[in-house]
Amino acid sequence: MPNNLPNDFISNLEQIVTDKGLIVEKNEIRPYITERRGRFVGETLCVVKPATTKEVSAVVKLCSDNKVAIVPQGGNTGLVSGGIPFAEDRAIILNLSRMNTIRDLDPINNTMTVEAGCILQTIQDHASKNDRLFPLSLGAEGTCEIGGNIATNAGGINVIRYGNTRALILGLEVVTPTGEIWDGLRSLRKDNTGYDLKQLFIGSEGTLGVITAAVLKLFPSPKEQQTAFLALNSLEDALPLLNMAQSMIGDALTSFELIPRIGIEFSQKHGHRVIDPIEAKHDWYILMEASAGTANSFLPDLFTKYMEKAFEEQWVLDGVLAQNKAQSDSFWLIRENVTLCQKPEGGSIKHDIAVPVSSIPTFIRKANAAVKKLIPGIRPYPFGHVGDGNIHYNLSQPVGMDKQAYLNRWEEVNRVVHDIVIDLNGSISAEHGIGRVKVKENAHYKSSIEIKLMQQVKHSFDPLNIMNPGKLIPSIQPKK
Amino acid sequence: MPNNLPNDFISNLEQIVTDKGLIVEKNEIRPYITERRGRFVGETLCVVKPATTKEVSAVVKLCSDNKVAIVPQGGNTGLVSGGIPFAEDRAIILNLSRMNTIRDLDPINNTMTVEAGCILQTIQDHASKNDRLFPLSLGAEGTCEIGGNIATNAGGINVIRYGNTRALILGLEVVTPTGEIWDGLRSLRKDNTGYDLKQLFIGSEGTLGVITAAVLKLFPSPKEQQTAFLALNSLEDALPLLNMAQSMIGDALTSFELIPRIGIEFSQKHGHRVIDPIEAKHDWYILMEASAGTANSFLPDLFTKYMEKAFEEQWVLDGVLAQNKAQSDSFWLIRENVTLCQKPEGGSIKHDIAVPVSSIPTFIRKANAAVKKLIPGIRPYPFGHVGDGNIHYNLSQPVGMDKQAYLNRWEEVNRVVHDIVIDLNGSISAEHGIGRVKVKENAHYKSSIEIKLMQQVKHSFDPLNIMNPGKLIPSIQPKK
Repeated sequence: MPNNLPNDFISNLEQIVTDKGLIVEKNEIRPYITERRGRFVGETLCVVKPATTKEVSAVVKLCSDNKVAIVPQGGNTGLVSGGIPFAEDRAIILNLSRMNTIRDLDPINNTMTVEAGCILQTIQDHASKNDRLFPLSLGAEGTCEIGGNIATNAGGINVIRYGNTRALILGLEVVTPTGEIWDGLRSLRKDNTGYDLKQLFIGSEGTLGVITAAVLKLFPSPKEQQTAFLALNSLEDALPLLNMAQSMIGDALTSFELIPRIGIEFSQKHGHRVIDPIEAKHDWYILMEASAGTANSFLPDLFTKYMEKAFEEQWVLDGVLAQNKAQSDSFWLIRENVTLCQKPEGGSIKHDIAVPVSSIPTFIRKANAAVKKLIPGIRPYPFGHVGDGNIHYNLSQPVGMDKQAYLNRWEEVNRVVHDIVIDLNGSISAEHGIGRVKVKENAHYKSSIEIKLMQQVKHSFDPLNIMNPGKLIPSIQPKK
Repeated sequence: MPNNLPNDFISNLEQIVTDKGLIVEKNEIRPYITERRGRFVGETLCVVKPATTKEVSAVVKLCSDNKVAIVPQGGNTGLVSGGIPFAEDRAIILNLSRMNTIRDLDPINNTMTVEAGCILQTIQDHASKNDRLFPLSLGAEGTCEIGGNIATNAGGINVIRYGNTRALILGLEVVTPTGEIWDGLRSLRKDNTGYDLKQLFIGSEGTLGVITAAVLKLFPSPKEQQTAFLALNSLEDALPLLNMAQSMIGDALTSFELIPRIGIEFSQKHGHRVIDPIEAKHDWYILMEASAGTANSFLPDLFTKYMEKAFEEQWVLDGVLAQNKAQSDSFWLIRENVTLCQKPEGGSIKHDIAVPVSSIPTFIRKANAAVKKLIPGIRPYPFGHVGDGNIHYNLSQPVGMDKQAYLNRWEEVNRVVHDIVIDLNGSISAEHGIGRVKVKENAHYKSSIEIKLMQQVKHSFDPLNIMNPGKLIPSIQPKK
């Protein structure tokens, strides 16, 4: 508890949110301060769970008056510790999970208004019941909350068609660091009446205010889908294959994922019911999917022509087109297991990078060579959203090496990989964000002018530096 | 000339940009301070035309040191006087037209890097030569410059498929109000490494800095197109017709434009070579277009099925599908003339509004009733981008009324129309921006918290208030 806190701070919080919205018991607090993979345990004064935007506003005002820091939190599924306070923050957790009302769905305008604590899957399901699609989709969708998705500009498997979370947001409701409520819940496709403030809050990781509600874009529900699992002739062939898909299949193309041979092997060894759909072994695979919003869409005809051309050009050596939903699911099961099945192979040093799509093969070859030189026997494990230029460039430890000795080299490996990324004008965090984990690394690569501009924005919104301090950008001194 | 200007200010400017980049003669200045439709003539100290980003930086630094205001300008085609200084601004014009180099085109990454002064049509043509599409398209495309398009977040006729300018920008290079150069020229689809600063500059109408270059998103070139001119059964039927297009045709749908009967009549009366493709007269028409990035795309089959269904549902009473490029051009000629042929009918009071797509019929009916009550005989002329919820709600004067007497009621009519827009959670400037013309009207409708947040952002970037003062948001006092 900060020594300068008034005695009645906790009781004042309780007055705002009642006992249903306040957690002070250590045991009950524990899940809120524990990183989902168990890597970190943070520290907090208490967990506050307001039920309404007005309660959020009152909590933030109280904290602002008392200069107590606030860490906004959704489903606590982030991978960079952006939603967890640490001892030096002397912060409360403002958890939005109780604000989980779907306020509205307009099928003609293709929009849906939801509160920040709605679980992503609940939103997907509600859209689906109304014959609409909310296309954001990622591993944690059963647990993560839309407020967190927006605050981190989440990516996922459909970005190539529908964009990142940023592209799916038409309006926001936000409580500012002084506790004021900004009602920006517009549901318009066009609005040129000033700075687009919502863009600042999207991806700001809770450092500029608390997102309490949002207007989401919806799309027609897919009625026909085509899913293919293709073995590439070479990594480089992924590029013309992608370009041809964009021309021929257009925006019906919804996913274009890269899977390396080692991903198949780990998945078959450690996963459950994972079947390699292609008999011979190949170095690289593409899992691709296309969707149409209508039956009898001609998509199957188009997709067949596309596959024929891919074989003809010899970009693809072998491949299977899913004949039914079960087979399509089995392809996606491989993709999910590629993510999950690294753990049993020991330590993994991870990167979430993006480069221009045209530089993907160069990046992978350069990075592989560099890390193998650094740690002989290291096992590169690059997979992910190649259509977006986004690779989860993970590195499994050499067989037989001591796990901790390997993980101790995390930062050293990061630097080598990130140097290559920056050299290719890339990003060291494509979709996971910066949080607490990557603040230093990010500041190392950003220009001083960019850091300064970000700090200016931060300071103008939050002069007391109470909103998620220490996250995203290097802290500046708060105003006295 | 501001009385506190040092004598050598102009000669210092000339040192930076040489005599090729400096205009001080009144006659030569005149086109730069004249609104394109001749509505206003502004006033400026001089016109500076730098040739490089470094020159822009040096000019801005000199102005900042001397507290001289700067109005950034592109092709000077804006409709709200955002690019013209006025006497009280004591400002120079910083015209970007000489910075017109296309720096790069990457066909695999589908990106193009251009300087701010490139004319939109030049960019479209260069993309096209490389078998790619840059989809931003609007009336002024032969004259307007991309820097201005970005600074105003321009819309146009392809927004339903490709989004506003904001959605087409991956990176920016900006000179800040202190003359520093921010190199944010990334060409990434994903980048979560901090606040997305470019979003602030996009649509900020030159009030936060000078955009000097940008990375644009490209798309596959259209290889097949379908263009249809359809007569609606009723205005309300536009909505299910649009929704069905989005499901059946998906993102192949690139335009969905509303045209009223009066638009056809004015176009036939005053336009050149305008032919009404449908024999009988109808109240409302839709001009729609769809594109595919490949030949033999099945788009014609899909489009035919769509048309059949539209007739079957009786949303469409009559319609013509263009049989060739010439016929498609003739449909678009109507659309262009709808914009142009209002002038010969006398005074026109204009609005550029957006509402949720589902509220379009309600808006038009309510606004028509309200303005007819206010000015009997007034002739509503609503047209435009109904697929984006964006209507150019123009109002031609009653036949025989004195033009000036009619135009004198501009603000009164605006207020009546905008009240209805706001009541429907709409926007009073969908794509034209705020500039100088709509500052007061916008401030009337925005919440005080939103105005305050915008002013905070403005002040943090430009504490001297030298960047395009008096535009976009109500000015605040500069720091002493």
